[in-house]
Amino acid sequence: MAEPILNDISHRRFNLLRGSWVLVSPHRNKRPWQGLKESPSKTTLPEYDPECYLCPGNTRANGRKNPKFNKTFLFVNDYSAVKEDQEEYHPERKPGSLATRLLKAESVTGKCYVICFSPSHHLTLADMTPGEIMPVIQTWTSLYTAHLSPKSPLARVAEATSIPPASEGDPMKPNAQYRYMQIFENKGTTMGCSNPHPHGQVWTTTSLPEEPTAELEQLSKYRRENGGSHLLVDYAELESKEKDRTVFENESFWAGVPYWAVWPFEVMIVSRHHKRALVDFNDKDRLDLAECLSEITRRYDNLFQTQFPYSMGLHQAPLEGSDEEIESSHFHVHFFPPLLRSATVRKFQVGYEMLAEPQRDITPEQAAERLRACGGVLYRKKLD
Amino acid sequence: MAEPILNDISHRRFNLLRGSWVLVSPHRNKRPWQGLKESPSKTTLPEYDPECYLCPGNTRANGRKNPKFNKTFLFVNDYSAVKEDQEEYHPERKPGSLATRLLKAESVTGKCYVICFSPSHHLTLADMTPGEIMPVIQTWTSLYTAHLSPKSPLARVAEATSIPPASEGDPMKPNAQYRYMQIFENKGTTMGCSNPHPHGQVWTTTSLPEEPTAELEQLSKYRRENGGSHLLVDYAELESKEKDRTVFENESFWAGVPYWAVWPFEVMIVSRHHKRALVDFNDKDRLDLAECLSEITRRYDNLFQTQFPYSMGLHQAPLEGSDEEIESSHFHVHFFPPLLRSATVRKFQVGYEMLAEPQRDITPEQAAERLRACGGVLYRKKLD
Ligand SMILES: O=P(O)(O)O[C@H]1O[C@H](CO)[C@@H](O)[C@H](O)[C@H]1O
Ligand SMILES: O=P(O)(O)O[C@H]1O[C@H](CO)[C@@H](O)[C@H](O)[C@H]1O
Repeated sequence: MAEPILNDISHRRFNLLRGSWVLVSPHRNKRPWQGLKESPSKTTLPEYDPECYLCPGNTRANGRKNPKFNKTFLFVNDYSAVKEDQEEYHPERKPGSLATRLLKAESVTGKCYVICFSPSHHLTLADMTPGEIMPVIQTWTSLYTAHLSPKSPLARVAEATSIPPASEGDPMKPNAQYRYMQIFENKGTTMGCSNPHPHGQVWTTTSLPEEPTAELEQLSKYRRENGGSHLLVDYAELESKEKDRTVFENESFWAGVPYWAVWPFEVMIVSRHHKRALVDFNDKDRLDLAECLSEITRRYDNLFQTQFPYSMGLHQAPLEGSDEEIESSHFHVHFFPPLLRSATVRKFQVGYEMLAEPQRDITPEQAAERLRACGGVLYRKKLD
Repeated sequence: MAEPILNDISHRRFNLLRGSWVLVSPHRNKRPWQGLKESPSKTTLPEYDPECYLCPGNTRANGRKNPKFNKTFLFVNDYSAVKEDQEEYHPERKPGSLATRLLKAESVTGKCYVICFSPSHHLTLADMTPGEIMPVIQTWTSLYTAHLSPKSPLARVAEATSIPPASEGDPMKPNAQYRYMQIFENKGTTMGCSNPHPHGQVWTTTSLPEEPTAELEQLSKYRRENGGSHLLVDYAELESKEKDRTVFENESFWAGVPYWAVWPFEVMIVSRHHKRALVDFNDKDRLDLAECLSEITRRYDNLFQTQFPYSMGLHQAPLEGSDEEIESSHFHVHFFPPLLRSATVRKFQVGYEMLAEPQRDITPEQAAERLRACGGVLYRKKLD
């Protein structure tokens, strides 16, 4: 049931998934914008760029040559944020001292990968059909499977349906048991991406990072307090009925602007059924996920007729964890896009947002309505 | 005691003030940058700009005329994020329903102000002397004092040392008792600022926002667990001894890069003595604070010889709160600047950071060393 009053008054909404609040100021979108404008992205890229270090057959900065791959290509990041091997860290501070109490650090090791989504330099997920996105999902699944702890209950379900991607050397073998795998994509220069060739990243670490930790706590709390039901199963069911925030749905997934969205056109894709991780999906689920990824990214580009920038990523069960952690995990995808009013005017999460609380200017319901309305053929194809 | 190994290995550090982790990847700063470059800021502004809505004597979008102020000027934000008066919100969902459990919202009212730091269009805090910054601190203090709950123990100490600023109408009178006041500045177009005239903002709300809530929990926990000592008093004492992360200090404040800094050149200014809010300061404290603000902003500009962008803000006691909340509060200032390697290459907190955990590329110790080294005359003055 819609609450139209929330389109008029300033209010806060509670993010049940991470246990935090967001301030909503719907009336504020009317102010004139005199600040920074982004430069709209170029859309005339070649299918192959001899200068691109991700194109098939090209040589990377470290001298290695990419294979002539035809679907996806996986390799270990040449500038990884975490190292696989490093000196051990033993804090040398006196026990009980002020320093020991106040300065807390721990070592992190891990492995980082890059995945090219396609050999074609000029494509993006928005240009690709669900069928063309399938190999990306299969690559994610293979990589996740290869890193699963043999002790995880998920290791038993991870059958070999997933097709190993084209890859360099034997990059899928982790050299240690890691705790968590973060799969993500930064798209567009505004989101710190330095190469338009369609690609994503995977950072795998010995630590369970902040965001999944916060979500796991909330998921597990809800399960305890609600007789074992899953927060995101209940949430997808409710949203699918309420419709106000739905952008697209199919048999396996609900996709829409979450009630507690921070970014103007933030989207979450949630599995309707309790699936803990990629390995819990069958072929039909994977195709439904590919369809959602295609529907969301295409609508994004159509909205402002531009290459819509975003950061996107998967949240799922840790590679290694307690049964409770793995059972409480629920597969979902987050899209965090910065644009607010046009291809050139973005939302800044700055002063107030960094110091006090995230703040948004249009309601999630208004955002969902606009994204619902711009499905169909990709605007670029119509211009051709 | 420095731990040089932390310059070489990837690790996480714990932010005791907000109870969260940050990933540190010191080796990563070596990678080449091929992504977005910021445009360096123009430094040739006129002292008075007839088009600027913040210059003395000019008319704003809503038709009001600014007075001919000569120090600071305070007015109610013409595009406030929260409204003072709005329709009341009563959720109409059925008790016990899925919607009631999952969709949680609450009304927020409040008042937003803008404060011009100087009549001169072309100045910034970095160009101003501590003496010239004093009126800004006095304006903050007057505004905070005017909004304090009469029930707060702080109301008793808030004497009239603070000088009321030039202001429009009677903007210092809140029309309701608010819970929290966030004083901040966004500087530079990169930080969403749309007018270079030196100014800051103040958002005052009926809610206690996320960040101060998290900090208050941690501060109060530390106090409970450590026989009543204050986390930030202990922290300033330790940092002042360790020196590695110190940028500048005087009798009343320690200023440096916190052990758990997220942004490359993040800085915190911490009161050495337990001061709960601006009203706890005497003239000497205020001048020492002005000196720190001047030293930090000047070093920032000197570092990459540019108008260094940042978001900056004050954390202090809530306007209204329990005695425990007010007593645990400890005055400090945060600076969150995005630049990483030069005037044009910033750090992006994007994919991994949004989905998993904040991540930094140089250590706080390396950042502090560089900021320590670039004190002295403002680079622009030398060029004159
Ligand atoms: O209020 P301003 O300066 O128009 O706006 C700026 O600061 C606000 C508070 O941090 C942000 O919400 C806006 O995104 C930003 O552009
Ligand atoms: O790894 P890349 O693409 O060079 O870098 C980009 O993504 C990383 C992970 O989100 C961020 O830490 C960087 O700031 C960003 O520029």
